[in-house]
Amino acid sequence: MEKLIITAAICGAEVTKKQNPNVPYTIEEMVREAKSAYNAGAAIIHVHVREDDGTPTQDRERFRVVMDAIRAELPDVIMIPSTGGATGMKPEERLQPTELFPEMATLDCGTCNFGDEIFDNTMPTMRAFGKRMIENGIKPEYECFEMGHLDTILTMARKGEVPGAPMQFNFVLGVPGCTPATVQNLAWLVNGIPAGSTWTATGVGRSAFTLAAPAIVMGGNVRVGFEDNLYLSRGVLAKSNGELVEKVVRMATELGRGIASPAEAREILSLKPLK
Amino acid sequence: MEKLIITAAICGAEVTKKQNPNVPYTIEEMVREAKSAYNAGAAIIHVHVREDDGTPTQDRERFRVVMDAIRAELPDVIMIPSTGGATGMKPEERLQPTELFPEMATLDCGTCNFGDEIFDNTMPTMRAFGKRMIENGIKPEYECFEMGHLDTILTMARKGEVPGAPMQFNFVLGVPGCTPATVQNLAWLVNGIPAGSTWTATGVGRSAFTLAAPAIVMGGNVRVGFEDNLYLSRGVLAKSNGELVEKVVRMATELGRGIASPAEAREILSLKPLK
Amino acid sequence: MEKLIITAAICGAEVTKKQNPNVPYTIEEMVREAKSAYNAGAAIIHVHVREDDGTPTQDRERFRVVMDAIRAELPDVIMIPSTGGATGMKPEERLQPTELFPEMATLDCGTCNFGDEIFDNTMPTMRAFGKRMIENGIKPEYECFEMGHLDTILTMARKGEVPGAPMQFNFVLGVPGCTPATVQNLAWLVNGIPAGSTWTATGVGRSAFTLAAPAIVMGGNVRVGFEDNLYLSRGVLAKSNGELVEKVVRMATELGRGIASPAEAREILSLKPLK
Amino acid sequence: MEKLIITAAICGAEVTKKQNPNVPYTIEEMVREAKSAYNAGAAIIHVHVREDDGTPTQDRERFRVVMDAIRAELPDVIMIPSTGGATGMKPEERLQPTELFPEMATLDCGTCNFGDEIFDNTMPTMRAFGKRMIENGIKPEYECFEMGHLDTILTMARKGEVPGAPMQFNFVLGVPGCTPATVQNLAWLVNGIPAGSTWTATGVGRSAFTLAAPAIVMGGNVRVGFEDNLYLSRGVLAKSNGELVEKVVRMATELGRGIASPAEAREILSLKPLK
Repeated sequence: MEKLIITAAICGAEVTKKQNPNVPYTIEEMVREAKSAYNAGAAIIHVHVREDDGTPTQDRERFRVVMDAIRAELPDVIMIPSTGGATGMKPEERLQPTELFPEMATLDCGTCNFGDEIFDNTMPTMRAFGKRMIENGIKPEYECFEMGHLDTILTMARKGEVPGAPMQFNFVLGVPGCTPATVQNLAWLVNGIPAGSTWTATGVGRSAFTLAAPAIVMGGNVRVGFEDNLYLSRGVLAKSNGELVEKVVRMATELGRGIASPAEAREILSLKPLK
Repeated sequence: MEKLIITAAICGAEVTKKQNPNVPYTIEEMVREAKSAYNAGAAIIHVHVREDDGTPTQDRERFRVVMDAIRAELPDVIMIPSTGGATGMKPEERLQPTELFPEMATLDCGTCNFGDEIFDNTMPTMRAFGKRMIENGIKPEYECFEMGHLDTILTMARKGEVPGAPMQFNFVLGVPGCTPATVQNLAWLVNGIPAGSTWTATGVGRSAFTLAAPAIVMGGNVRVGFEDNLYLSRGVLAKSNGELVEKVVRMATELGRGIASPAEAREILSLKPLK
Repeated sequence: MEKLIITAAICGAEVTKKQNPNVPYTIEEMVREAKSAYNAGAAIIHVHVREDDGTPTQDRERFRVVMDAIRAELPDVIMIPSTGGATGMKPEERLQPTELFPEMATLDCGTCNFGDEIFDNTMPTMRAFGKRMIENGIKPEYECFEMGHLDTILTMARKGEVPGAPMQFNFVLGVPGCTPATVQNLAWLVNGIPAGSTWTATGVGRSAFTLAAPAIVMGGNVRVGFEDNLYLSRGVLAKSNGELVEKVVRMATELGRGIASPAEAREILSLKPLK
Repeated sequence: MEKLIITAAICGAEVTKKQNPNVPYTIEEMVREAKSAYNAGAAIIHVHVREDDGTPTQDRERFRVVMDAIRAELPDVIMIPSTGGATGMKPEERLQPTELFPEMATLDCGTCNFGDEIFDNTMPTMRAFGKRMIENGIKPEYECFEMGHLDTILTMARKGEVPGAPMQFNFVLGVPGCTPATVQNLAWLVNGIPAGSTWTATGVGRSAFTLAAPAIVMGGNVRVGFEDNLYLSRGVLAKSNGELVEKVVRMATELGRGIASPAEAREILSLKPLK
């Protein structure tokens, strides 16, 4: 089995310092959290950005500054900026980080409820995002919240509308309104991906670690971080993203899986090696 | 195993006479199609209504006239009006047929892509629909296009926001953007319903019959009709909803399942018997 | 989807004329049943042989005479003799039909209860059978009654102990003591086979047709016949194997799948074409 | 979710001191290992017994002496003696520990290959074991290696041939010849048990911990011990059963599940409390 790639979703668009004072907003805080996750074992930083007051933004320049600051400290880390953004943002607004030519970027594969809101990813939006990533040489991380999302993106890949094999999927389970984060659901979704693909499991809220465990066993990869979960254990706020990553590392170690470095993760994900 | 309940979705909101000249728009056509389906073995008519020119509408009076006309000819048939309506309609508009106090009505359990459009069913909408059905004594048919839809409605039922056990689910599979109509997906979704529930499978397009077959075997029920599928077999347009129902009856007969009358269907669905 | 290959298991080792007077024992009866199945649409005859009084045997000469007699009437049919035999037979005894160099032969992939008896297929037996089939150029039909059987034979194929890809599996479900013949179980087992494999479903007893239906839909093939099931429908004894095959043909036709001729079946199964 | 019940299978019938010098044979060694497991968190000791030279035996007196010695040190631990015994033992021989009226005993639910050997549990044997357990007031732990085993025992329970609800199942996965120890297989088997049942997962060999992880998450219980696995991690022999139990406790703690005491385990398993 390949080594485990850990992604740290250090910030997100919705969580706030009120919920956990360690959520990063500023550039310095973003760098601090990226470093804590990297030092704990994360090969990938999933990047959302915020204004200094915490307002979510998809502004290209904010992405540039934050990603440059992280790069300065962590020369080899993989960064995956979000094109999901936050509630109410328009597709073009959400696409801005792709103008920075990152190695990878997320691409959400369908529309669904997200609590009382709608997370809006129409097929025309998805095609536009796929076209951009093809043009800019960006490998998508395909975020799937439902089986229908997986099927949609596979159909688009067959038509050449989005980048094809080898594909990387992220099964984000446990969002209110979407597929719950059970072992059974994860197993069923993973059955649906093409041979030669890679995949990651993201359990939202209290399922962060209970979904990580079967993912580690099944040969998948794991995403954790403040975006998905603010707690280290019941009632105990995490002091840093690093604490969350450390816990995944401990679990992987008990289960006999090694942890992938960024270079190893690039190879597993079929990304170009760093020069 | 219980007898098979066949639902005929005779009309839908989107299909047109251009696609199949037998799609009903007028009251007379609606009655004609309802009768053909009933005579072939359908216990339930799923009712959408259209203007005489085919424009979809959720107008209460149109529902009243159509349902009265069908009732006059088919005194014992079960009618399930749609609250799904058509693209772009507002929740209150969609809710109108519930003012007629039907035995049952559909309730869509989540938001999803529907081809290039969004089928918009937010949680607040769902709660409003559930409240209305509780107040008006209407049993919902819970339409689920994804596993997340099933989970959402079960959560709402536990909270008392929508009518609870015994629940009736309709797994609508094969919509572009949603869970595809495979045997495996149907098996997985059915595993998720509470004991004591009833369920129906609806395969969209060419999967109408290939999804019906496992549903018949697994003890589920089947919906067919022009709303979902216009063809009797590859390249052969159906002459009536009755032809589609007859095909399901033939399959059920080969597989050893009897066909439920409306009275038997009411008992299976825990509806009140007709006086 | 490929055309449907129908196998007729016309005789079996255990069923008797007392249960259904049309069960064949003699050479003439075997030819009669093979012809009825072939004429109805079967591309493959699965061959067990019996003494004229019905006693099951694995005698090589009996197999030779029966298979020659069928071949004389049906020059292009595929015949798959059994190496399963009957309760209490020794491995070498069971292997005899492989000395006739048939195109294919069954190979049972594990030990299990079979009602109150044991169906005994140890790993050393399986290796011996695999070796013989490799030597004699026979393609096995791998009969699996449990997930463990499937896993065992895949492991042996990886080690080169039995013939490898493209493999043909037969999921025999519904034997008392083994995996029951549900849609869910079939779906789960089929998920476990390698890409590029072919497979057949065999439902024992009353599940003969209820397992055939999902198999037809899922792209698998179907085995029916007196070996597995003596009834055309509840309480109605089949008059011939042909009647059972005809019922599968009707179901396939409703579901839009064509029926494979022997020549088409050879191509699908990667067998050599007839000269 | 209920607290996690950990069973320690401290000895087994087949593993030897040559493989791991800490495998217990003598009474003193059995007590030592039981204590190490109990102190680490095991609520249940699964008991096989051996002669002082390691020969497996089902001798009633040996069971009595060993179980009395463990009881003297661990007054509240639950002990589940095996009726599986070792290769080649006869049913009556295997049944001996049931004469000691233990709270529970294992009951194997089918015949299967066990490596190159057959593990022989015919339906008549199972009925005899079930009858004895009903008579002696013993709750079975139903060991299932295949889906067919689960189905068989559910059928027998419905007929009253073996003790019924609430039933306790042990899914023993990873035996060569039987269902492999994957997350998917565990999920599928667990789907098949009746509501109100309890279950345990046992992963054989290197899957001991990789099967424990999803079991902990899914609400199941876990068995580990020298019977199933001699290694703490790759290449590292476990110094005691306690070490293996400790590792499960660490995993459960990371995943937020508490560990059941023997008294709590009795309540979860519907056993009578100790006086």
